[in-house]
Amino acid sequence: MKNQQLFAPIAGGGLLDRRLFLQKSAMLSFAVLTADTALAAGDEERQPWMKKPGKPFSNYGVPSAHERETIRWTMGNSMAPGNGVSWTPLHQMEGTITPNGLHFERHHNGVPEIDPAQHQLLIHGLVKQSRVFDVKDLERYPMTSRLCFIECGGNSNAGWRSEPIQSKAGYFHGMASCSEWTGVPLSLLLDETGIKGRAKWLIAEGADAAVMNVSLPLEKALDDCFLAMYQNGERIRPENGYPLRLIVPGWEGVVNVKWIRRIHVTNRPVMARNETSKYTELLPNGKARQFSFVMDAKSLITSPSLGHKLEHPGVYQISGLAWSGKGKISKVEVSADGGKTWAEAELQTPILSKCFTRFRIPWQWDGKTAVIKSRAIDETGYVQPERDELVAQRGQHGYFHYNAIVSWEVSAKGGVSHVYS
Amino acid sequence: MKNQQLFAPIAGGGLLDRRLFLQKSAMLSFAVLTADTALAAGDEERQPWMKKPGKPFSNYGVPSAHERETIRWTMGNSMAPGNGVSWTPLHQMEGTITPNGLHFERHHNGVPEIDPAQHQLLIHGLVKQSRVFDVKDLERYPMTSRLCFIECGGNSNAGWRSEPIQSKAGYFHGMASCSEWTGVPLSLLLDETGIKGRAKWLIAEGADAAVMNVSLPLEKALDDCFLAMYQNGERIRPENGYPLRLIVPGWEGVVNVKWIRRIHVTNRPVMARNETSKYTELLPNGKARQFSFVMDAKSLITSPSLGHKLEHPGVYQISGLAWSGKGKISKVEVSADGGKTWAEAELQTPILSKCFTRFRIPWQWDGKTAVIKSRAIDETGYVQPERDELVAQRGQHGYFHYNAIVSWEVSAKGGVSHVYS
Repeated sequence: MKNQQLFAPIAGGGLLDRRLFLQKSAMLSFAVLTADTALAAGDEERQPWMKKPGKPFSNYGVPSAHERETIRWTMGNSMAPGNGVSWTPLHQMEGTITPNGLHFERHHNGVPEIDPAQHQLLIHGLVKQSRVFDVKDLERYPMTSRLCFIECGGNSNAGWRSEPIQSKAGYFHGMASCSEWTGVPLSLLLDETGIKGRAKWLIAEGADAAVMNVSLPLEKALDDCFLAMYQNGERIRPENGYPLRLIVPGWEGVVNVKWIRRIHVTNRPVMARNETSKYTELLPNGKARQFSFVMDAKSLITSPSLGHKLEHPGVYQISGLAWSGKGKISKVEVSADGGKTWAEAELQTPILSKCFTRFRIPWQWDGKTAVIKSRAIDETGYVQPERDELVAQRGQHGYFHYNAIVSWEVSAKGGVSHVYS
Repeated sequence: MKNQQLFAPIAGGGLLDRRLFLQKSAMLSFAVLTADTALAAGDEERQPWMKKPGKPFSNYGVPSAHERETIRWTMGNSMAPGNGVSWTPLHQMEGTITPNGLHFERHHNGVPEIDPAQHQLLIHGLVKQSRVFDVKDLERYPMTSRLCFIECGGNSNAGWRSEPIQSKAGYFHGMASCSEWTGVPLSLLLDETGIKGRAKWLIAEGADAAVMNVSLPLEKALDDCFLAMYQNGERIRPENGYPLRLIVPGWEGVVNVKWIRRIHVTNRPVMARNETSKYTELLPNGKARQFSFVMDAKSLITSPSLGHKLEHPGVYQISGLAWSGKGKISKVEVSADGGKTWAEAELQTPILSKCFTRFRIPWQWDGKTAVIKSRAIDETGYVQPERDELVAQRGQHGYFHYNAIVSWEVSAKGGVSHVYS
């Protein structure tokens, strides 16, 4: 019953023009043809759920029971269960927003249960007047909202391994999520405290039991950072910093301090564990990159990806995510022949700075082995590197800031695996 | 300890320039001044949650226990509990996105528990070839994403009452929510079935036990409608149409058919109960508006609003939502003197067509009784009407499409009530 048209490719491996589906002649015909009477008749053809009243209203909704496998994959340290990660299941998602229940987590000592009536933010140090802000105070300040991604500096670190890890896209690259955050610009609060002339850094500290702290250059703090109270419309979730999180758009997750309680204005960085023994990168020449805050442009195909199955040859939509900590994504190119030729994907609008951008392109799979991959280009002109380029620059023993092109191999049977190509 | 500056207003009642907070001199000073040593010292000053490991990672997160009152307010018919409404708590929210658990509900016979592997969509009637699409088929089609609002045609209907209802903003106007929806353009599927020349309408039918159906003009279907499978990145929630919902941007909620199972292409509307006895509007001249699909521009102040309390005179942020079913919001004006004078509010960017737009403006409350209100103007030039204008046009006995300006009275004690002004 399924018959399919063949389309003229615009690049190797069967990539089709991204505007194909705007042409009225493009018939995918995945559907089953049927007589006009089907489903149009009486109760005998109705599904069981049409024969009885449905479930009642709920105060706070939850996903369908059929979506029980769409979850964050969690990994705690067995010796210290509050130290670990949970990944956003990007391979099961579409669009650009991460629902709050699926936003990735990275904690060092679990999720503190903070009473917002007792939580305070102190700003002190090289200021003209120290101040303490409680959450109720901050609610009166003018707010700003921004859709932006947060990505852990250690996201995709399995990419540094010598053999390609066989993990699903989200459980490999899903320490990255994207929300609409709303809160008070940090520059407003620093105006109120005043800043002394020799101030250059802020030390931001969270109210978890690990008392996580990091250094942030004053210039960035005054640019686009804000203290978020809301995430996708509602109060921030506990695991994302309730009741107050510092948002540092485009910069590695660790500086987006959760449960923020203190900002110490100083003339030098604090040299905390998370900027000396961690979140630094030893380079091939023996030197180390430190304070490599900005997340460079990255992209990956989320569908099809590892764990998906292409049932038979034909047209598929290739869909994925791209983002850059330096601004807007200007272009995403996709290859279906392992990188020999590339075609431009369609970008979901609006394209926002430092935000997930969804890309999509149609692909006619001929049923043979194929390697598909994507590369992001951002508005600064930066091009996402191939893996061998990244390794040449940064060495074999990296851990942070892995942003190489991701390759998926579709086998003749339609299975998808991770390859280095 | 709290000292406050006075600012020059730009309209009556103390409205301040929306760009005030971009000026470096604007000090709100809600915070408490403090010595530099506060909170900077040892454990003895730490909150209890900093003294023990936090909670573990979770596969799917939930809000803080301190936010238990941020819920949809539900109202079912006691004789038919699946027939009713739940409202989005707009008065407790910020930004523009509605998290999926708080998206409003309107059901006629509860929420069906649909197995997506068994769900199908039939397109038949005045088509060249009837087709049946299952969910797995649809996953292969090219998708589109759009941030847009859905608003029930009956939203805010308590506004037609002769006395102002004393309900919180969300429980009065919260049959409106805004999500990023992702799915397959309906025009693509209609290309595949083909459409016969005399076709003018589609009859869309849901798979709930009420077998809800409505008529939709073919022209709109071919314009910007799509069959959504994802809501804010994850699969649509059961109460919002899992696994498939028709999205009709800017048009009243009832035509955004949930659990859609059938599209019958016809040359005339079906004249279903929901377009004859309901969702029609008797006018003062005895005639009725029917097929009044488009949701006209609307706005309301969500903060401060009924149930909020202004603790003392000073600067507050007025924040609210505006939207139009006809396109983009071009301007929102706010009055703090009951409509005598107006000032332009700041609009959150990006401003998207048929989408919630957040507006904000600073307000210096002098501690006296004040009436605050907002009016939206959309890109067609339509201006949200005052209540008496709307009643003059549409009569005293309306039920649907209430979009008049909403007035909140702040008393000298700082309490907020709903008034007609």
